Amino acid sequence: MRDFEFLSPTKIIFGRNSEAKVGREVKNYSRKILLHYGKGSIIRTGLYDRVVKSLKEEGIDFIELGGVQPNPRVSLVREGIEICRKNGINFILAIGGGSVIDSSKAIAVGVPYSGDVWDFYAGKMEPKTALPVGVVLTIPAAGSEASKSSVITNEDGWYKRSINTEIIRPRFAIMNPEVTFTLPPYQTACGAADIMAHVMERYFTNDKGVNFTDRLCEATLKTVIYNVPIVLKKPDDYDARAQIMWASTIAHNDLLSTGRTGDWASHGIEHELSGIYDIPHGAGLAIVFPAWMRYVYKHNIERFIQFAINVWNVEPNFESPERIALEGVERLKRFFKDIGLPTSLSEANIGEDRLEEMATKATERGELGEFVKLKKEDVLNILRSVLK
Amino acid sequence: MRDFEFLSPTKIIFGRNSEAKVGREVKNYSRKILLHYGKGSIIRTGLYDRVVKSLKEEGIDFIELGGVQPNPRVSLVREGIEICRKNGINFILAIGGGSVIDSSKAIAVGVPYSGDVWDFYAGKMEPKTALPVGVVLTIPAAGSEASKSSVITNEDGWYKRSINTEIIRPRFAIMNPEVTFTLPPYQTACGAADIMAHVMERYFTNDKGVNFTDRLCEATLKTVIYNVPIVLKKPDDYDARAQIMWASTIAHNDLLSTGRTGDWASHGIEHELSGIYDIPHGAGLAIVFPAWMRYVYKHNIERFIQFAINVWNVEPNFESPERIALEGVERLKRFFKDIGLPTSLSEANIGEDRLEEMATKATERGELGEFVKLKKEDVLNILRSVLK
Repeated sequence: MRDFEFLSPTKIIFGRNSEAKVGREVKNYSRKILLHYGKGSIIRTGLYDRVVKSLKEEGIDFIELGGVQPNPRVSLVREGIEICRKNGINFILAIGGGSVIDSSKAIAVGVPYSGDVWDFYAGKMEPKTALPVGVVLTIPAAGSEASKSSVITNEDGWYKRSINTEIIRPRFAIMNPEVTFTLPPYQTACGAADIMAHVMERYFTNDKGVNFTDRLCEATLKTVIYNVPIVLKKPDDYDARAQIMWASTIAHNDLLSTGRTGDWASHGIEHELSGIYDIPHGAGLAIVFPAWMRYVYKHNIERFIQFAINVWNVEPNFESPERIALEGVERLKRFFKDIGLPTSLSEANIGEDRLEEMATKATERGELGEFVKLKKEDVLNILRSVLK
Repeated sequence: MRDFEFLSPTKIIFGRNSEAKVGREVKNYSRKILLHYGKGSIIRTGLYDRVVKSLKEEGIDFIELGGVQPNPRVSLVREGIEICRKNGINFILAIGGGSVIDSSKAIAVGVPYSGDVWDFYAGKMEPKTALPVGVVLTIPAAGSEASKSSVITNEDGWYKRSINTEIIRPRFAIMNPEVTFTLPPYQTACGAADIMAHVMERYFTNDKGVNFTDRLCEATLKTVIYNVPIVLKKPDDYDARAQIMWASTIAHNDLLSTGRTGDWASHGIEHELSGIYDIPHGAGLAIVFPAWMRYVYKHNIERFIQFAINVWNVEPNFESPERIALEGVERLKRFFKDIGLPTSLSEANIGEDRLEEMATKATERGELGEFVKLKKEDVLNILRSVLK
């Protein structure tokens, strides 16, 4: 087990109608804020009105910036930075899912910085300070509501890059499972893949002596596996929606990283897919993760056996350990298929033509992954293995 | 699932030689502190010297107050309050386990209060403000290093009473598993029972739709069950000690309470045992908890079946659900016995003579427990059932 420091400073306000508390929370930080969101869905569902009502009740002024897209763009981030600077805004309230939150975090580090915000994502500079960010969460998936990461896409070359820093963890996250009742099945499924991927990236580690976090990871995976089929049948099942929503936060607030180093190669590969083809991150992960597993499982077959038995209830018949390991991967793939996700590139309408480009981009800053180090050729092999 | 708010503000600094970072952490709060600890063990092991060295390197002044006993006494708390007031001290550093930390929290709420600190524990007053507390943890058990509770014993009548308030959560907890290598087997086992009890108090709930926290609870219990026998055989097994230490914190920082109400009757009953007979809290819990389970399991046999199957791997043969449920309880009791704990009152040299008094005291502020409400007669029945 590795030494670690762990702090989870995000205040979670979870439950029915919790968005009515947003004004109470915001006023601890600011009286003039940027309201950042995506498309019209929050207006259609009435969430926008409920948030605005709560802000007004507390006398909080706001300027709006909507239009965040999935795979959020640096151009809109730059626009947000300008608005904050011009209006003396010192707090960003994100209403949305991972894209909106990531965009808000990018604005938060960009405002106090004299250069261009992409410098941070390109790895040229480390952000030193950030405006505080608060969240009203609408999509359980990215875990960005309590995480230290932000992923932004640069349209100039379609680079999708991330930053990881403690200073961008949101101050609070308001989480009402009811607002997820209207999430379409495909988006629900993409979220599930994203949550599971966050856990699995941490699960596949070379660190020994980490059985507590192993068990916590397995608990989180089993929760997603159990509850997602329930909400796909009954979208307004409050308790099942609530389990998924809370699991999405725990999957990525770094509790499951304590004492261990994860892999993160699958995320690296997927960022090229969604960066270039603009598919949902979760869909890309559903394609890449099982392929990555089949490519690397021999590196530590015991860990894959543990995954198969403890997460997927594969019968522990040790006459063929390899069969147990691969059956776990197969069940993961089947689960993704069953909940309606693509598990090959062709199902996502992605052909062979840009695989080389993606493999190059994914490894241009060095080898990918910690569990197993991948070179460009490995990434290409993984992508080729899921063409069909 | 219930609505909840969750914040875990304690910064965890975990790993080998982490006590060398104590000065760095303390100086964020104060330059003049109270160093609060128990007996000589921290001096014998050299931990005291390493802490003092780190404090001196950062120029931090301190006044010492040792002598905290297990089941910490309000008289020493009052002494600590006086020392802080006379010397203008505004930070308490606890070096020790649950007793030292609980005593430190009591001092922390007592210093800014004009009345007697026992008012809070007697339920006459709510603490409004507290000095900040930091922790160098030596015993994984109470989980007090990140919890909102403090339990103190009043020698005047041998009342053992607790407070629960967010304002006493420690600001940081320094956790080095190496310092637990020298814990005697009995103390290690008592710690294990304490950790498991914190999880089980939360596990047995009437709230439905909480399968995520169920899984997290089971993960934490399995971690203790797996690792404690390892350290009893090999006290310096770093990784096993580390799993137990980290599990002890997560067991009681309220993550496992999110969305649910626990029971806490067993703690209430045990406090009378250790309040009067001064036995270790964990030993008392090992006696009380299985007895409580046998007394209440019919209230929700499905939950006890889940406990038996998911925590203790009892074969799920549903020809006799009752047998599955009771086998889980039996395995818990056997585990406590195997690690060297008493599982009857007579093994702890406690006779019949004061059972009535304990049952009266335990219920004098009303019925005990949430999962099942216990009256005085119920508590008496539970205690009588484990006389031998």
